[in-house]
Amino acid sequence: MIGGATKLFGLVGHPVAHARTPQAMNALFERNGLDAVMVPFDVPGTDLARCLASLSRVGNFQGMVVTVPHKMSAIALCRDLTPRARLAGAVNVMRRVGEDAFAGDMLDGEGFVVGLAAAGHSVAGRRICIVGAGGAASAIAVALAERQPAKLTLINRSRERLLALHERLRLRFPDLEVVIGEHVGGHDLVVNATSLGLREDDPLPFDPEQIGPGVLVAEVIMTPEITPILHAVARRGAAIHAGRAMLDGQLDAIFRYFSEGGRIAVRRGREA
Amino acid sequence: MIGGATKLFGLVGHPVAHARTPQAMNALFERNGLDAVMVPFDVPGTDLARCLASLSRVGNFQGMVVTVPHKMSAIALCRDLTPRARLAGAVNVMRRVGEDAFAGDMLDGEGFVVGLAAAGHSVAGRRICIVGAGGAASAIAVALAERQPAKLTLINRSRERLLALHERLRLRFPDLEVVIGEHVGGHDLVVNATSLGLREDDPLPFDPEQIGPGVLVAEVIMTPEITPILHAVARRGAAIHAGRAMLDGQLDAIFRYFSEGGRIAVRRGREA
Repeated sequence: MIGGATKLFGLVGHPVAHARTPQAMNALFERNGLDAVMVPFDVPGTDLARCLASLSRVGNFQGMVVTVPHKMSAIALCRDLTPRARLAGAVNVMRRVGEDAFAGDMLDGEGFVVGLAAAGHSVAGRRICIVGAGGAASAIAVALAERQPAKLTLINRSRERLLALHERLRLRFPDLEVVIGEHVGGHDLVVNATSLGLREDDPLPFDPEQIGPGVLVAEVIMTPEITPILHAVARRGAAIHAGRAMLDGQLDAIFRYFSEGGRIAVRRGREA
Repeated sequence: MIGGATKLFGLVGHPVAHARTPQAMNALFERNGLDAVMVPFDVPGTDLARCLASLSRVGNFQGMVVTVPHKMSAIALCRDLTPRARLAGAVNVMRRVGEDAFAGDMLDGEGFVVGLAAAGHSVAGRRICIVGAGGAASAIAVALAERQPAKLTLINRSRERLLALHERLRLRFPDLEVVIGEHVGGHDLVVNATSLGLREDDPLPFDPEQIGPGVLVAEVIMTPEITPILHAVARRGAAIHAGRAMLDGQLDAIFRYFSEGGRIAVRRGREA
């Protein structure tokens, strides 16, 4: 039950109509008896700084989940950043840490590997290809690199981001084979970490002809649940792993990030 | 159930912890199957313009209920105003009417008289005293003036607002006795239309010793439900009318203002 004292959290992105995060977070707030609610804020790409500057002045606004296209640009608006957020060059959660200040963390990487593990898929010893070099892709690359894959191949249309991610991974994981690639073929696990598939008229993020039976193709897009590229590779006998698992794999971490230290009051009548 | 496509409405004020409007509006959205939610935005007095400029860029933000201390200042931020909002010099509801634009209306006056009538109290022929000259007070004065009271007395600490309201009422209702007063005694209905009573350390809005049995004292403050002045006059034998009635009396009007013209989609699965 939303009341005047309810703490406010946002799901900030564009578009947001597809998002599932508010439903999931509100269920967690409810289950834990916290007086908080998450609502969507449909904020176009260029308006994030202005919008955050205002929300930081709203007394009961406590934080947000940040999604496409803001994960990388939001990092500039955080006063405090965790090491993994700095390494990924992106945040996907922010919380208020003062009058006008936010802190940020990046939970997509951990969420992705937790989601993979929950579905019974391992990372160690696998040849992995990551398509994309944005905020989620960077976080996923770091989380996968920490779990001893046999090899990590990076593919992205924009060369600049790709080279920057490659450099960061080589510095942090000097013993790991990290290469820049062109084709998704020859890997055990291929991750679409681009936003291609979110809009109906998007092209496929890579050529499904290069995927054969036995390969696992994972997605970060949540809606549609089975994206066009997942449909295409499933028809070729590949195993698929839907994007929803990355969110499910980090819900508890998001909840802890928002609520730790008693930041949200328990609803009246729920105190023990 | 809040989802990514949910339309967002705000209850904008400071403080907002006492507010009951989100609960009431969300119940109406729910009952009508509309995919919309109202959440509180605790916005300090000087930050309204900046906050609204940003919210007008949030794609799914559709409007707001405006409360203390913003009812008068919000009028400058509305592109379109109803005649009663202009006459009151205040708005308490705003809705999006374009990319960056809001329209405003003032429903407090109608809400107050609907609430009075619902409790069985009449206006015609009564000697009425209104304490306050802010947004709610102005709207209530206009709505009462339209219903043939015997006399309207205006009291306010700030002389400037008081004279302005007096002048507007005299121009609009030339046949009505509208006077500037100092004492609440000698009236049948006394309305506290100030915000005094909202905070625990507020002084009383007027001297309860001037109120005797048979007088009706009405309030616009909703929390506490029985304000200190209502307690004080009740002990003296006066009848009391709580502020909640003004909100209850305008809930349907607020709902129509937000939803008319099919501005809010019906939730999937609820279409007939």
